[in-house]
Amino acid sequence: MGRLGGRLLVAAVGKIKENHWQAAQTDYVKRLGYYTDFQLVEVKDAVGRNVPEAVARQREGEQLLQAVGDTNRMIALSPEGRPLSSPQLADFLQKEVVAFGRLAFLIGGPFGFSDELLTASHLQLSLSPLTFPHEMARIILLEQLYRACTILNNEKYHK
Amino acid sequence: MGRLGGRLLVAAVGKIKENHWQAAQTDYVKRLGYYTDFQLVEVKDAVGRNVPEAVARQREGEQLLQAVGDTNRMIALSPEGRPLSSPQLADFLQKEVVAFGRLAFLIGGPFGFSDELLTASHLQLSLSPLTFPHEMARIILLEQLYRACTILNNEKYHK
Repeated sequence: MGRLGGRLLVAAVGKIKENHWQAAQTDYVKRLGYYTDFQLVEVKDAVGRNVPEAVARQREGEQLLQAVGDTNRMIALSPEGRPLSSPQLADFLQKEVVAFGRLAFLIGGPFGFSDELLTASHLQLSLSPLTFPHEMARIILLEQLYRACTILNNEKYHK
Repeated sequence: MGRLGGRLLVAAVGKIKENHWQAAQTDYVKRLGYYTDFQLVEVKDAVGRNVPEAVARQREGEQLLQAVGDTNRMIALSPEGRPLSSPQLADFLQKEVVAFGRLAFLIGGPFGFSDELLTASHLQLSLSPLTFPHEMARIILLEQLYRACTILNNEKYHK
């Protein structure tokens, strides 16, 4: 099994509550570890009864920026981002790893990203024009990163 | 809680093996039942060591057509279909229910749909240009149908 090289980090807002999403996450994080230096970081969501949405976004954005640390390249996932097919994502991933080495993919919370975070991000990708619950967006991203690794290794395509 | 009216059926190829996808499916099927006359039908996959892909597709297509029965409107899910945002899907769903009453959404197996099934389908929708494992495509569809129901009921948007 070939390794992708580089380092991939997924920084996401909030803990996953449902057991089934947690189990899916554990599965894909484990699988990604076979292919690349992979890390998932969960930052605390700032959602609260007396917290305005803009303040929650702001606080979560600051935490996400802290979580990505010295990453060279920040890619925010958003329904408004650039849409890619799975083979295109694999190609994108390989080129980005060659060019930048350390990549971070960012998944926002229920209220999305702050303007500061979007400005700091190098690009935005879209998983779908559909809006997903943020837990599901996270699992989809993990699965697609895993799938990209299998595509780059010319392994049997997992449908 | 308002009801959508009509009848929604999801016909999908294969049993879900992983416990976490099974749990997610059970959750969304239950939630959909609050909003609409909903049914999920799983047909047996025809994948086997000595079964050519085209034959598997053919057999699965026949079973899907049988499963949808007297449904008035068949909508096949495919990465090549028409992309919709979540509010567009809600709008689509409402119009289709008014016009046709009984709708069936079809999710293929790992090898996709037979030409016969695509010809018999009234339209194709896309969940994303990304290719998902068929279990995941099924969960995404269920979640989006559920989300569409909440949108149509003007309920707090579930992100």
